[in-house]
Amino acid sequence: MIAVLCGGVGAARMLAGMQAVVDPGAIIGIVNTGDDTELHGLHISPDLDTITYTLSGVANPTTGWGLTGDTFRAMQALERFDAVTWFRLGDADLATHLYRTGRMREGATLSEVTAEISRAWGLRVRLLPMSDDPVRTRLRLEGAQEVAFQEYFVKLRHSVVVDSVRFAGAEVARPAPGVLAALEAAEVVVVAPSNPVVSIGPILAVPGVTSVLTARRDSVVAVSPIVAGAALRGPADRLLVELGGQASAPGVARFLSAWVGTLVIDEADADVAGEVEAAGVKCIVAPTVMRTPEMAAGLARTVLGTAGMDLGPSGGAPVAPGA
Amino acid sequence: MIAVLCGGVGAARMLAGMQAVVDPGAIIGIVNTGDDTELHGLHISPDLDTITYTLSGVANPTTGWGLTGDTFRAMQALERFDAVTWFRLGDADLATHLYRTGRMREGATLSEVTAEISRAWGLRVRLLPMSDDPVRTRLRLEGAQEVAFQEYFVKLRHSVVVDSVRFAGAEVARPAPGVLAALEAAEVVVVAPSNPVVSIGPILAVPGVTSVLTARRDSVVAVSPIVAGAALRGPADRLLVELGGQASAPGVARFLSAWVGTLVIDEADADVAGEVEAAGVKCIVAPTVMRTPEMAAGLARTVLGTAGMDLGPSGGAPVAPGA
Repeated sequence: MIAVLCGGVGAARMLAGMQAVVDPGAIIGIVNTGDDTELHGLHISPDLDTITYTLSGVANPTTGWGLTGDTFRAMQALERFDAVTWFRLGDADLATHLYRTGRMREGATLSEVTAEISRAWGLRVRLLPMSDDPVRTRLRLEGAQEVAFQEYFVKLRHSVVVDSVRFAGAEVARPAPGVLAALEAAEVVVVAPSNPVVSIGPILAVPGVTSVLTARRDSVVAVSPIVAGAALRGPADRLLVELGGQASAPGVARFLSAWVGTLVIDEADADVAGEVEAAGVKCIVAPTVMRTPEMAAGLARTVLGTAGMDLGPSGGAPVAPGA
Repeated sequence: MIAVLCGGVGAARMLAGMQAVVDPGAIIGIVNTGDDTELHGLHISPDLDTITYTLSGVANPTTGWGLTGDTFRAMQALERFDAVTWFRLGDADLATHLYRTGRMREGATLSEVTAEISRAWGLRVRLLPMSDDPVRTRLRLEGAQEVAFQEYFVKLRHSVVVDSVRFAGAEVARPAPGVLAALEAAEVVVVAPSNPVVSIGPILAVPGVTSVLTARRDSVVAVSPIVAGAALRGPADRLLVELGGQASAPGVARFLSAWVGTLVIDEADADVAGEVEAAGVKCIVAPTVMRTPEMAAGLARTVLGTAGMDLGPSGGAPVAPGA
């Protein structure tokens, strides 16, 4: 069994690559819910939905959120009111939020609803929210104003300087059922190429997670979301610098080194592999950019191969970059 | 000032007729919320919305609910899940429910949100929910099963026999701010041609309403929703019979006689006017079917004229049925 710590788009693509090379039933995605928000009374779980839609082949590839071909009639009508409309919710996408919210008001946990939504979409990978308790990523901006994650990420388009990040509610949150067990029992724990600060950070803030990972550090493999000094998408590069680190593969290694034994970095960063190793993290150089499903499968083979997993007849095929 | 006790479609049409013959700013609609329901976590107020959409000229005239030309992408997507889809929510209509729900989760009362929604639509008539507290109409069916109003009305299409009706929560509900004051101060209280059992009944169940109405019975004017022994729409005729009354204009008179001084009945029922008077209710015979805005305005003139109101230069024009 493979456990994967997941943020949004990068994690979704890597899970898609993984399920192409190993039995999807053996994959458990543990998903960040620090981005979750309540809007118009609806419980919205952006990372869970991005993964669900991506694995179902219906994600909008250009936006990174929502469903391909969705319409925005409800949003358009909402503009009549003094309501938040900078967070766009497509009409078909709304169904997911409506279902989730309805079930949670009935008393279902986020884990239970996530399993139901996964089943409805026919997912074969198992998705677990990191916690059923509310954990909310909050960012203190330069000038001392604190904002919720979606306000930073969507409304302000993350073009502001962040002084500090906290995960409100994390100290009293419990890992969702199955999370710690999966992290303990997995043959390998993979850290998807997600934002280490605001996508992986919330998962680590859930009590119990870090200590389990630290205890099995040698079989925790991360993929660097920083390639050639820049994040492939989102503000990971700037956040790392703003919080006192470096926007580089070695910077990621140092950020994660307490509980990550191996870091897969992109070929573009081959020259800094030694610097990663100097941080006490084993370094693997490979193509990491997932522009196509084949490239995602290639990355999955690299990641699982370094963990010594048997990938079966085709799973061990040599990685052909760009194939 | 005119206070109008309102259900859905019939009330919406009568309010539209009224605002054509008197200053809309003088009209206060006190609206049934016993039909309100929570679906997918959203607070839905069907009667308030039907009136708002009708007065805004955007109501779907064929369904009696929702917005004309609306799409159903969210509903279609919801069918993937094990969710209630028999209660249809159009995409643009959803915006109203999203806004209301978001504001109520923020702590706004239903009255406050109703005022905001009215303002957003530019309504000139003032709408008040009968109560800001939850009152829910529940029907005990033959065979002892109890269902919520929308399940009876929409899912079962009211083609079941009802043994009894109750208004859960009514005993502890408080009239919404302004309701009792409007009922006391109004020059005339009008009872719209709405279902007396399940549309007007919940308003009467709110503590304080009946006693105010009884005290001013002589200036309370109702319009019979039963014409020639049948309800123009909905189950009012069957409900009256099932609950021990009669599906006739005199049946309506007897049902309301404790607090209604005058009943306007349709020309089709002219032969039973004496029977209405025998119930102790003054009877006015007039065209009551509102097939066109002109007919609705005509009915409004009749109703307000019988209350001796000065309708201004054009307000007193003779009613031309079918004009």
